[in-house]
Amino acid sequence: MKDQQIEINLATTRKEKPDFNNLQFGRTFTDHMFIMDYTEGKGWHDPRIVPYQPITLDPAATIFHYGQTVFEGLKAYLTKDEKVFLFRPTKNFERLNRSSARLCMPELDEELALNALKELIRVDRDWIPNLEGTSLYIRPFIISTEVHLGVSAALTYQFIIILSPVGAYYKEGINPVKIAVETEFVRAVQGGTGNAKTAGNYAGALKAQEVSSKSGYSQVLWLDGKEKKYVEEVGSMNVFFKINGEIITPELNGSILEGVTRDSIIQLLQHWGLPIVERKISMEEVYQAGLDGKLEEAFGTGTAAVISPIGEFFWKNEKLIINNGETGPLAKKLYDALTGIQNGTLPDSLGWVEEV
Amino acid sequence: MKDQQIEINLATTRKEKPDFNNLQFGRTFTDHMFIMDYTEGKGWHDPRIVPYQPITLDPAATIFHYGQTVFEGLKAYLTKDEKVFLFRPTKNFERLNRSSARLCMPELDEELALNALKELIRVDRDWIPNLEGTSLYIRPFIISTEVHLGVSAALTYQFIIILSPVGAYYKEGINPVKIAVETEFVRAVQGGTGNAKTAGNYAGALKAQEVSSKSGYSQVLWLDGKEKKYVEEVGSMNVFFKINGEIITPELNGSILEGVTRDSIIQLLQHWGLPIVERKISMEEVYQAGLDGKLEEAFGTGTAAVISPIGEFFWKNEKLIINNGETGPLAKKLYDALTGIQNGTLPDSLGWVEEV
Repeated sequence: MKDQQIEINLATTRKEKPDFNNLQFGRTFTDHMFIMDYTEGKGWHDPRIVPYQPITLDPAATIFHYGQTVFEGLKAYLTKDEKVFLFRPTKNFERLNRSSARLCMPELDEELALNALKELIRVDRDWIPNLEGTSLYIRPFIISTEVHLGVSAALTYQFIIILSPVGAYYKEGINPVKIAVETEFVRAVQGGTGNAKTAGNYAGALKAQEVSSKSGYSQVLWLDGKEKKYVEEVGSMNVFFKINGEIITPELNGSILEGVTRDSIIQLLQHWGLPIVERKISMEEVYQAGLDGKLEEAFGTGTAAVISPIGEFFWKNEKLIINNGETGPLAKKLYDALTGIQNGTLPDSLGWVEEV
Repeated sequence: MKDQQIEINLATTRKEKPDFNNLQFGRTFTDHMFIMDYTEGKGWHDPRIVPYQPITLDPAATIFHYGQTVFEGLKAYLTKDEKVFLFRPTKNFERLNRSSARLCMPELDEELALNALKELIRVDRDWIPNLEGTSLYIRPFIISTEVHLGVSAALTYQFIIILSPVGAYYKEGINPVKIAVETEFVRAVQGGTGNAKTAGNYAGALKAQEVSSKSGYSQVLWLDGKEKKYVEEVGSMNVFFKINGEIITPELNGSILEGVTRDSIIQLLQHWGLPIVERKISMEEVYQAGLDGKLEEAFGTGTAAVISPIGEFFWKNEKLIINNGETGPLAKKLYDALTGIQNGTLPDSLGWVEEV
């Protein structure tokens, strides 16, 4: 499969580019997309770059009924000297394959997938925004396409990559968010699909977000599905706490997504010689640390926002204010370090950047 | 919305009908489909019957990424005197609305939806197979269609109904299946989406089915996600046990689907004056009853198979044979009663049948 030639069919007309100063997240897409088909027995075939276009599927395609789909999210950055950087893209394609395995979907050749992505970015290179904080958001995804209402793994799939120029996540710089601790709804449980990047996890999470946003909380903190005691994720991000000088993040347990940003932060902290621990941490412990004045910082981490500081937790009808509701020095330092490596203004001392 | 006129655009050419003696489940679809659009602020609009045709969606439509989708399954039956019967269809549209509420999707006018279904069945009436055990399987479903990669409830949806002639679920009559008790994977947990009929539940369940089928077990028995102790469902069906003369089914707890067949069986048993209890039941209790010779029968219940007797459980490396691996008298009696009411050969004493 590695040697398969990618067929390129360029668009005859190009779309008008959006104002790079006013980009919304995931609303505008580039001129082209990558597609590859899978047929049981034949494997992945016909990799191709085509003009960005609708997907046409039978209404009985299994994706609409039984939800076999996995996706990834990563970004390409244009450096000041006009290079195009990807940040640890292999990690995303490895995780895509782990997600696929959980959903009984066929795995991809990671090298082919990365080459396809690079080729697509080259074709749509002039869509990468060049302003501070902007980037080209990359969405690889696989959908099941078989026409069959029986509940079984599909025999045909499509792997697709689309690209979207996006602005800085925080228009006025990195700003703390208010988070409600979710005590009714559950995102995932061990034995389920929580560690796979698959649609059902996101659909199921919307209700909690809807309820909490009515009370003025932008996201929820998810607790474990068994005891609703241990911290798992925040919104669709991993979460870190700094308590009494030590940095703690929930350990991977099967229901937590293995974030690329999470892993990068752990490595950065270790590289800096700071104490970072992956372990179970209960909401009770976080709250008590807050009462004792030992909860110095809390923040979410993910590809879209990179670092999202948490200024307040709402739990059991009590508000817990963290670091006076302001961005803490560790969150700021991590944000600057990661975005600096990603956009090429800081040296890539950990070998994370890959040039297109 | 109730007064909206359904626009009907008939197909100019008709497909060849399949051999009604050799129908596969969910592989062949009729000449037409029903579609209705939803736009935030405008509500549901443009109800229409159109020739069966592909769905065309932007690759960034949220259904492909965040899985906002719900569905239903029911059947239409052709009676010997050429009437068309639906079985408790209102229950399905009520459940569709409950599922939609959980997934932050817009609810439908149940009366309009049922009228649309009846109109569609009238248009494709000659697709209803007339052989013993056959029926027209009905799949109403809603998908989110908004073009947006942000994780939030979509602002646009489509409600679609497609129809598929299906054969008897068991070609050689009702036959017991072998079931493995699932101890690693979890279907659902309280606070999750287990009681909603949504794609993610089915995608997540495939892996357990794949693993168990390699050991010769056709489906798995799902235990609760918290303690992996209490029985929840079997495959994609509800489950009943007859122990020492009493019939027991797991009580609805938020992670179990509220099956229409399940409800009908409970009502039938009550109507017959048989002892039926909805309560928590542990796998340990089922197993011990089996060892004590008190587990008389076990069976799954659902729209597709109606009743699926369980001949064997595999749990903790032990096999438990039920009723000598044969269909028990209660399962047979319930199957005959339900299918008799559905296809009009038995009187509809509980008022469940609705003529199209």
